[in-house]
Amino acid sequence: MGNLSYVKTPEGIEKKSFEIIEENVDKANFSPKEWNVVRRVIHTTADFDFANLLKFSPGAIEAGLSAMQKGCRIYTDTRMAEAGINKKALKELGCKALCMVDDPQAAEMAKREGITRSMASVMMAAAFPDIKIYVLGNAPTALFKLIELIREGKANPDLIIGVPVGFVGAAESKEELSKLSVPHIITKGQKGGSNIAAAIVNALMYMSLEEKTIKNG
Amino acid sequence: MGNLSYVKTPEGIEKKSFEIIEENVDKANFSPKEWNVVRRVIHTTADFDFANLLKFSPGAIEAGLSAMQKGCRIYTDTRMAEAGINKKALKELGCKALCMVDDPQAAEMAKREGITRSMASVMMAAAFPDIKIYVLGNAPTALFKLIELIREGKANPDLIIGVPVGFVGAAESKEELSKLSVPHIITKGQKGGSNIAAAIVNALMYMSLEEKTIKNG
Repeated sequence: MGNLSYVKTPEGIEKKSFEIIEENVDKANFSPKEWNVVRRVIHTTADFDFANLLKFSPGAIEAGLSAMQKGCRIYTDTRMAEAGINKKALKELGCKALCMVDDPQAAEMAKREGITRSMASVMMAAAFPDIKIYVLGNAPTALFKLIELIREGKANPDLIIGVPVGFVGAAESKEELSKLSVPHIITKGQKGGSNIAAAIVNALMYMSLEEKTIKNG
Repeated sequence: MGNLSYVKTPEGIEKKSFEIIEENVDKANFSPKEWNVVRRVIHTTADFDFANLLKFSPGAIEAGLSAMQKGCRIYTDTRMAEAGINKKALKELGCKALCMVDDPQAAEMAKREGITRSMASVMMAAAFPDIKIYVLGNAPTALFKLIELIREGKANPDLIIGVPVGFVGAAESKEELSKLSVPHIITKGQKGGSNIAAAIVNALMYMSLEEKTIKNG
């Protein structure tokens, strides 16, 4: 009936977890900044596949850090991704997360036009020029719509974190995103998700804060 | 510059996704109710591993459905899992989701005792007897603590959805849970997560609602 023995401090758990990841993935395949992202995604999922699936367009991480250091708005396609974003880091950066998927206007637009609410809310988001980072972890339809809006000149974000998940359109939506010159971070293939989206945002925020501290220190 | 061609209705996407999953996993290995859970978790993650990792203790699903049909409280260890739970289904069942991980009291207790906030909030949750379902998708420490509370007679839930993720304690916490007689649904090994936790809750809620409709119709 005695107490079970297990690591009980969050710092201890994360440190040990990162050590195990380093033992299993060759970090030489990544820049130090990329590695911070890859490591956190594997930490979040316990899925080593992501070392092969995560792809960064040139300058994508730097574009994200710069936008975050200016206190941008970060759009998420789901409440889950929004919930997974570290609120303390967000506040320290002066950034804001925004999700409109359950906005009544989005629901109405979706119903009227026979599209997903995720698509409708991306269309609404395009009206906010201070949204510099789009985080799409769930719906391929939202990513396809964002790509359309960019091609039509109606959106021009600094960074797209495009990691929709699933068997219907997810891989294709990310393939399409990878053709754009807009800085992007994707997971190739079918895997992705709101948890991965949030993990990427958090990894970028922690780097942004570290850089900011060094600059200001 | 023309519009991209892709499936744009949520119903169409889910239907096609479920068909693809059925083509890739032998559903004969599961009871129809188990299959509803397995299928939704794979739909959420695009990770077929979960067909091998998900384990149901005898009567676990039925215990969950029964608690949900009585309008129980559902405890989640993270805001992400809470955010991923379908709010419409929750309301229709008269259930409530509860997460206390960011409660100031939990933070204070965690600091004072040198434990995780997840552990502290599970200890607080044990004071609510109407919490019949514990959903732990993130912290092994929360699951270890819940197991301790059950062994000490301080908690007695109808169902534990125990799917913590990670390299430090996750597999061990679920192994320990599988020794209890309390009904449980787990993912064996290191994989799991808040998204998987929410997917399991949603699959159970949809079945609960379907059964309720049949009974009342």
